[in-house]
Amino acid sequence: MKIVTFGEIMMRLAPFRNERFSQAATLEMTYGGGEANVAVSLAYFGHDVWFVTRLPKNPLGNDALETIQKYGINTGYIQRGGSRLGIYFLEHGASIRPSRVTYDRAHSAISDAEPGSFDWDQIFSGKDWLHITGITPALSSNCAALSLEAVERAKKLGLNVSCDLNYRKKLWSREEARKTMSRLVEWVDVIIANEEDASDVFGIKAEDSDITSGKLSVEGYASVARQLRDYCSADLVAITLRESISASDNNWSALLYNGNQVFNSCKYPIHIIDRVGGGDSFSAGLIHGLTNAWESQKCLDFAVAASALKQTIQGDFNLVSEKEVLSVMGGDISGRVQR
Amino acid sequence: MKIVTFGEIMMRLAPFRNERFSQAATLEMTYGGGEANVAVSLAYFGHDVWFVTRLPKNPLGNDALETIQKYGINTGYIQRGGSRLGIYFLEHGASIRPSRVTYDRAHSAISDAEPGSFDWDQIFSGKDWLHITGITPALSSNCAALSLEAVERAKKLGLNVSCDLNYRKKLWSREEARKTMSRLVEWVDVIIANEEDASDVFGIKAEDSDITSGKLSVEGYASVARQLRDYCSADLVAITLRESISASDNNWSALLYNGNQVFNSCKYPIHIIDRVGGGDSFSAGLIHGLTNAWESQKCLDFAVAASALKQTIQGDFNLVSEKEVLSVMGGDISGRVQR
Amino acid sequence: MKIVTFGEIMMRLAPFRNERFSQAATLEMTYGGGEANVAVSLAYFGHDVWFVTRLPKNPLGNDALETIQKYGINTGYIQRGGSRLGIYFLEHGASIRPSRVTYDRAHSAISDAEPGSFDWDQIFSGKDWLHITGITPALSSNCAALSLEAVERAKKLGLNVSCDLNYRKKLWSREEARKTMSRLVEWVDVIIANEEDASDVFGIKAEDSDITSGKLSVEGYASVARQLRDYCSADLVAITLRESISASDNNWSALLYNGNQVFNSCKYPIHIIDRVGGGDSFSAGLIHGLTNAWESQKCLDFAVAASALKQTIQGDFNLVSEKEVLSVMGGDISGRVQR
Amino acid sequence: MKIVTFGEIMMRLAPFRNERFSQAATLEMTYGGGEANVAVSLAYFGHDVWFVTRLPKNPLGNDALETIQKYGINTGYIQRGGSRLGIYFLEHGASIRPSRVTYDRAHSAISDAEPGSFDWDQIFSGKDWLHITGITPALSSNCAALSLEAVERAKKLGLNVSCDLNYRKKLWSREEARKTMSRLVEWVDVIIANEEDASDVFGIKAEDSDITSGKLSVEGYASVARQLRDYCSADLVAITLRESISASDNNWSALLYNGNQVFNSCKYPIHIIDRVGGGDSFSAGLIHGLTNAWESQKCLDFAVAASALKQTIQGDFNLVSEKEVLSVMGGDISGRVQR
Amino acid sequence: MKIVTFGEIMMRLAPFRNERFSQAATLEMTYGGGEANVAVSLAYFGHDVWFVTRLPKNPLGNDALETIQKYGINTGYIQRGGSRLGIYFLEHGASIRPSRVTYDRAHSAISDAEPGSFDWDQIFSGKDWLHITGITPALSSNCAALSLEAVERAKKLGLNVSCDLNYRKKLWSREEARKTMSRLVEWVDVIIANEEDASDVFGIKAEDSDITSGKLSVEGYASVARQLRDYCSADLVAITLRESISASDNNWSALLYNGNQVFNSCKYPIHIIDRVGGGDSFSAGLIHGLTNAWESQKCLDFAVAASALKQTIQGDFNLVSEKEVLSVMGGDISGRVQR
Amino acid sequence: MKIVTFGEIMMRLAPFRNERFSQAATLEMTYGGGEANVAVSLAYFGHDVWFVTRLPKNPLGNDALETIQKYGINTGYIQRGGSRLGIYFLEHGASIRPSRVTYDRAHSAISDAEPGSFDWDQIFSGKDWLHITGITPALSSNCAALSLEAVERAKKLGLNVSCDLNYRKKLWSREEARKTMSRLVEWVDVIIANEEDASDVFGIKAEDSDITSGKLSVEGYASVARQLRDYCSADLVAITLRESISASDNNWSALLYNGNQVFNSCKYPIHIIDRVGGGDSFSAGLIHGLTNAWESQKCLDFAVAASALKQTIQGDFNLVSEKEVLSVMGGDISGRVQR
Repeated sequence: MKIVTFGEIMMRLAPFRNERFSQAATLEMTYGGGEANVAVSLAYFGHDVWFVTRLPKNPLGNDALETIQKYGINTGYIQRGGSRLGIYFLEHGASIRPSRVTYDRAHSAISDAEPGSFDWDQIFSGKDWLHITGITPALSSNCAALSLEAVERAKKLGLNVSCDLNYRKKLWSREEARKTMSRLVEWVDVIIANEEDASDVFGIKAEDSDITSGKLSVEGYASVARQLRDYCSADLVAITLRESISASDNNWSALLYNGNQVFNSCKYPIHIIDRVGGGDSFSAGLIHGLTNAWESQKCLDFAVAASALKQTIQGDFNLVSEKEVLSVMGGDISGRVQR
Repeated sequence: MKIVTFGEIMMRLAPFRNERFSQAATLEMTYGGGEANVAVSLAYFGHDVWFVTRLPKNPLGNDALETIQKYGINTGYIQRGGSRLGIYFLEHGASIRPSRVTYDRAHSAISDAEPGSFDWDQIFSGKDWLHITGITPALSSNCAALSLEAVERAKKLGLNVSCDLNYRKKLWSREEARKTMSRLVEWVDVIIANEEDASDVFGIKAEDSDITSGKLSVEGYASVARQLRDYCSADLVAITLRESISASDNNWSALLYNGNQVFNSCKYPIHIIDRVGGGDSFSAGLIHGLTNAWESQKCLDFAVAASALKQTIQGDFNLVSEKEVLSVMGGDISGRVQR
Repeated sequence: MKIVTFGEIMMRLAPFRNERFSQAATLEMTYGGGEANVAVSLAYFGHDVWFVTRLPKNPLGNDALETIQKYGINTGYIQRGGSRLGIYFLEHGASIRPSRVTYDRAHSAISDAEPGSFDWDQIFSGKDWLHITGITPALSSNCAALSLEAVERAKKLGLNVSCDLNYRKKLWSREEARKTMSRLVEWVDVIIANEEDASDVFGIKAEDSDITSGKLSVEGYASVARQLRDYCSADLVAITLRESISASDNNWSALLYNGNQVFNSCKYPIHIIDRVGGGDSFSAGLIHGLTNAWESQKCLDFAVAASALKQTIQGDFNLVSEKEVLSVMGGDISGRVQR
Repeated sequence: MKIVTFGEIMMRLAPFRNERFSQAATLEMTYGGGEANVAVSLAYFGHDVWFVTRLPKNPLGNDALETIQKYGINTGYIQRGGSRLGIYFLEHGASIRPSRVTYDRAHSAISDAEPGSFDWDQIFSGKDWLHITGITPALSSNCAALSLEAVERAKKLGLNVSCDLNYRKKLWSREEARKTMSRLVEWVDVIIANEEDASDVFGIKAEDSDITSGKLSVEGYASVARQLRDYCSADLVAITLRESISASDNNWSALLYNGNQVFNSCKYPIHIIDRVGGGDSFSAGLIHGLTNAWESQKCLDFAVAASALKQTIQGDFNLVSEKEVLSVMGGDISGRVQR
Repeated sequence: MKIVTFGEIMMRLAPFRNERFSQAATLEMTYGGGEANVAVSLAYFGHDVWFVTRLPKNPLGNDALETIQKYGINTGYIQRGGSRLGIYFLEHGASIRPSRVTYDRAHSAISDAEPGSFDWDQIFSGKDWLHITGITPALSSNCAALSLEAVERAKKLGLNVSCDLNYRKKLWSREEARKTMSRLVEWVDVIIANEEDASDVFGIKAEDSDITSGKLSVEGYASVARQLRDYCSADLVAITLRESISASDNNWSALLYNGNQVFNSCKYPIHIIDRVGGGDSFSAGLIHGLTNAWESQKCLDFAVAASALKQTIQGDFNLVSEKEVLSVMGGDISGRVQR
Repeated sequence: MKIVTFGEIMMRLAPFRNERFSQAATLEMTYGGGEANVAVSLAYFGHDVWFVTRLPKNPLGNDALETIQKYGINTGYIQRGGSRLGIYFLEHGASIRPSRVTYDRAHSAISDAEPGSFDWDQIFSGKDWLHITGITPALSSNCAALSLEAVERAKKLGLNVSCDLNYRKKLWSREEARKTMSRLVEWVDVIIANEEDASDVFGIKAEDSDITSGKLSVEGYASVARQLRDYCSADLVAITLRESISASDNNWSALLYNGNQVFNSCKYPIHIIDRVGGGDSFSAGLIHGLTNAWESQKCLDFAVAASALKQTIQGDFNLVSEKEVLSVMGGDISGRVQR
């Protein structure tokens, strides 16, 4: 399948070994960002993927570009220009101490991109799917306009469109999010959300659930899924459900609602290596299943297994093959050495 | 508040990644020591802190000094002289393998400091609180004399005095400890101990408790607290309670006894990053609460939350803010990413 | 005791911090291999140990040799020659993601060693024990012949012979394994196997057990032990039982059958640092007990405690002393800091 | 002496071992910036130093602050606020490959500071010296205004004022620089420049000199010094002279002109470890000499020796003592081990 | 231009910081190999490049593939199969100590590739240039056959063909090299050699030159170039001239002979960061110039400047842009910081 | 040959990459010490070597022991006991900045060893050579007594005895050194010294030489050699001559005087990787030549080449083979890659 994702890729700088910034003399430099993460995972599953963004003409922009190339993603629609590369600083938490993200992405190349500066008709020509998240429109009013351009154009050109709501409170207010995302979801076929997004963005509440306590009500979220599908006029709604026992241990599951039936996944207990990008890897897994025309339960199970695996891998990217996901999905979660 | 702590700061040398010394080619160099740890934590909570010690005039002494300065601690009373900096070698355990400390602190600058060589009147002038631990008097007979000088002088000058018993069997015998500490606690207002110290130092037993099995009796320790308060004629006694499930997982709680009432904290399950300095961070948290004149339960809860957080942080120092402790204390222990 | 082990030592190359190869810029270089691992552990327990192999005359062969020397093993019978050193690449798994071994050991110096090229009479002169595993005969037909030479000669010269079945599906088929191992075990006194080997090599099944689910039936394995002892005409059979909850957490136990009685060990819950070499450290612990003529239960308990400890240590080698194993065996698994 | 410096401190991120960004997986995180570098060096020479800047209220701002504290600098006048910390990315060159700096300092906290937002009267009360560079006014029009405020107020309050012209072509044009710096130097007593600044900023040319060829004419620069002193109505002009043989090897010297006489230093051949901050360490050395009222030749010799030493040290900061500088100045440049 | 290179890419494993293998606990893992190095450099100069090889289907083969992708090289003709990835171990020398390469490339995937297994007609369709080196035919008789197939087919299809003689004495004897290379050069337009290759491969001697002494006679090599051109019936012959003063310092130059005139480059003194791949970067530079139809002197100067720059960069690959080469070629070798 | 060396092995802790301690977060941990360095080098040259010392019974003592074992040295006479392992902290200089050693070796296990506690008759039984340096007697009066015991006993038992004067001003005064060393050299056959030792220890002056300037007079040192031989009644005197151009670049040569003739070596220009242990590697090279009964010039040339090579290697130990030294000695100092 030919899949396009549009958004920002940032340099990610993180101290090693659960250090705080105050202790670090050395930072791990990798790259990541919602839509780029989805692109990498889909490329690993064997798809033809294009990542669309804007990168500055400097050594950091070059490095970001090479990272995308490395994973086999097409970069032909990436623009070069603007003044800086977005950065995010990540302090890995542990146990009862949360991970801490410090964004330094204002004024990034993509944030400053002008509406109308991407030739969507060319970009979407011959493509099957567009994926976007709620992060891109949150970057700037320019990016909100570009995101709206993209989804509308993609939909009209016959692509399937998926969107992960991905609310980021450090980027915009709930009011701003609701205003923009309400327009954006009009063009979206598949809505993906985590257990908080529906409430944050659209005020749709999960009853009987206390997120900070780590307990989630599957039933409550089924009701959220139904409300969300109605609100967005979408075909499909998927909700990932994270029970955060601590920064080190989470339970991970999801549900999928297709208008007729709510499908529930099994729940994976995960000892976390890196939870950033978990939701993105779910999106990639779901898109993989849908483009393969798998049955709904299989789509969901694959997406949950893929995203459970992601959280055992350093960095934003889910560097796993379809075969590895299928193995986990088939029940092999014992971690035995393969030799 | 203006707080003084007195003791030794050592270079701490530890292999990375749970390696044993036999495997290590590289060591992590940090600094730590009971009273220095308390000083750093109190500085992070916003207090004016002075750390008093003696450091050699060599590059290692300079480096120790700069480490203290980094965290905003006043160093004006630190003497320079002596022949060497104390060192401790730390091999991080994991799971059923214990961490292993090899002390190399004999003949350190502070160990060889002469009684009478610190001008306590000047040091304590205008200060509110002195904190010391049972490690300092264990270093040498000189240090025992200096410790006794310090607590007596501080008490007479009207400072509050707190002492963490902190028995170290590799430094002195139980008999030596009892002899010296019995004199020292006469001048102490707040006694802090872990679940073993009362027994080791003063022979006060916790009934119904088997420490190596990892199970502790809260009731038994309440009785220990009462005996300890009587023995020391102290105002307050706090006891930290560690249930060591393994080197990787502990449960952590504490109790506080003010003569009228025993207060119990909640119990935190902790996936350990570094448990060294846990008791010190409890002392700092308790002093912070007491100097803020918080109610006893809040003082205890803050101290336990602070020291639980510490154990998720590399190194001896508890590099957390009051705000972060209050968040844990308020129940947010799910480790969700803040972004 | 004077103990000989014969086999291959490989360079082991592994990314750090649970990275996949695709992420790694740096590899940890250590050395390991079944019989070398046993040799190191026995040397740490105080025995006189000879490791017999063939190493290439190049910097990597030299480095392997120095690694063996470092741990106090006699290297006098190691031959130099051949074209390359065997290598294995290890990707550390985490949580539900399995560790992944990529062997690159074909054409190694020992694989290409000619039958008859070792002077077994000289090697075994004055020695008490030979240990070998099912990996060595799997390397090549030459190595199969050498292994058969070795066990037969050792047995005839009066040494005790132990063999860990250690089936490696990436090295040979079950049919090949059965054919060779059936001849080899004729000369073996002590058979060691994990919960899968008996089935893989000899088709002996453990009833009521599902290995990928992580659950094991102790009773089933007692029956396996009895069948295995009969099949091999051995004195003793020991079976290690790993319950893989995930790549990060395992339960570990074993049983021992001496023809009269089945002895069962306690079960250790282990947070895994490195599980490679777990079985080898069990073999070393068992040989240590047997050469000390300890009672069967003690032999088993020591071997299980030793191998539980191993899994908390980086690398293939079990760098622990007898004293440390006895401490764990005595029940101290709380991981308290020793200071 | 009580010395104030005003400017920006940035996070400095650099690949290790001469890597290009395209190769790096890990970055060294340190801090630096012209006036902060001068502050650190002066603190190492024993002065009371205040560094004045504005830092964001986030973990990176905290870390920058702790770095300044570490070296014993007073931070009481540092404001907290603004949106981000300035960053600069440094790729270390080698041999014929130049080092490459990518600035990412736009919109930094200090860049966005409002004119009038620092209370200069309080800051300069009781102080002896202000040092500033041409980088600070280049950051933004706000910073230009703040810089002019600072020098004027300092001069009027009786402080000595020094300024390092430090032209940065990536920050502003020559025209902009000339316009602002012409006003700023009115209040300056001591002008410091490198072999290019006088030309870049004020169009004052060194005849007979070709900088990219690495050859410099001492005579030509004496004429530059004279023109510069006249242009700026300064008391003293110092010019550092770098002969760049390659990124790895430089010759380093300077001259000083006091209106009567041109003093020339010896020339140090330097194998470069890190040349960034070389000019700043010269400024610090010169200020140290001048505040000690040393003779001109000694001031110059100390400043040159100090800055030669700097270039053998990693990072922006010149972490050397007065004693070490005096030793080099005394001719001991043989690098013999001290033991 | 559309350029194809054919050969082997290996994993390169090297200790850090000039360590010997006996000292290393950690290895730097990168990738390299003659024709892959040329491909990367040409891609950095902006060409459309295809690298043709065979890689095993395992994590190491995947990683090699991603490395090639990262630098923007087309990988569509790379076959997957075979049993292992070639490896080379590199110990970096320093000063008078030579670097030491230990090849472990026997039985690699490309070595075992069958003659006839690449569809050269498809590969060369629409391409302009083929580059190969004398290493590929040295790998195995299969590779010799494949190399001959490739050059013959390329030439017949109208591509320009260049070949770097690159004699490796650890791979084959001089006699074997002469026999195969004599046939191969029949199809080659551009011959590239270092100061030893002509003698090693074809017995063509440079008079008046002693290579181990580090002194080279330009005149002697002009005569070598002439003999070589005649022997090979080539259009162009280029010879790189390395004066090895030590492992740390080399002088680097080259000459080019077009049948009419010998062109000489300037000589660069280089402080070596990594000299591996120096010759390959020269080939890439030369091909870049020739495909741009630059004049002979400019082609040579560009190739020498490019390869001088390479030796200041870690790893096999010359990660520099055309602009950077032109800057060095224009005389800017002073290594000044760009900021 | 069977060779014994007696002295102290220390842990060596050094920051990486020319960092000062103030910058280091990580230290390189290796081991070294004069006589241990000689032992390792001789073992690498193929001799049977025994290193005699005393090591504490703790993890650090174990690690030191394993390091010695690794290099194939016999450890059967090493005693275990005492309170600590000696440490030295090394800050690597660069260019004009000297390396800085901070000793922390007081109260080490060997320093506290009792005179008479080594059974020299057993140790020297069947041995051919004893090597010692002037560092061991400088450690403590106990060590001075042990050193005198050793040389006297060795000489009387017919061993050849060599001694490197190795004056360390941080360990004892010149007067103390002269007193003890005058007695010790009575039993010594071969005296080794650097260009300063003769003067420091015995007041024997090299005329016309200024060591800090880096210039040495060969003639002057010939006169020193003659005086030294007379003073010590030795057979042979060797003097190493270091011209320190900077911490990064040295010239290295030596002379040998046998009573009849002064032999001079060539002079090696060295780009320094690590100069510590240079003199020790010279001693090892000389002993190697002498035990092989090579001619004087060859002995000297080998020793100089060996010690020149050492200075290109990290750490105290000269990890080079006889073959590598012979290659350098044969004139191959061009550092060409061997492949």
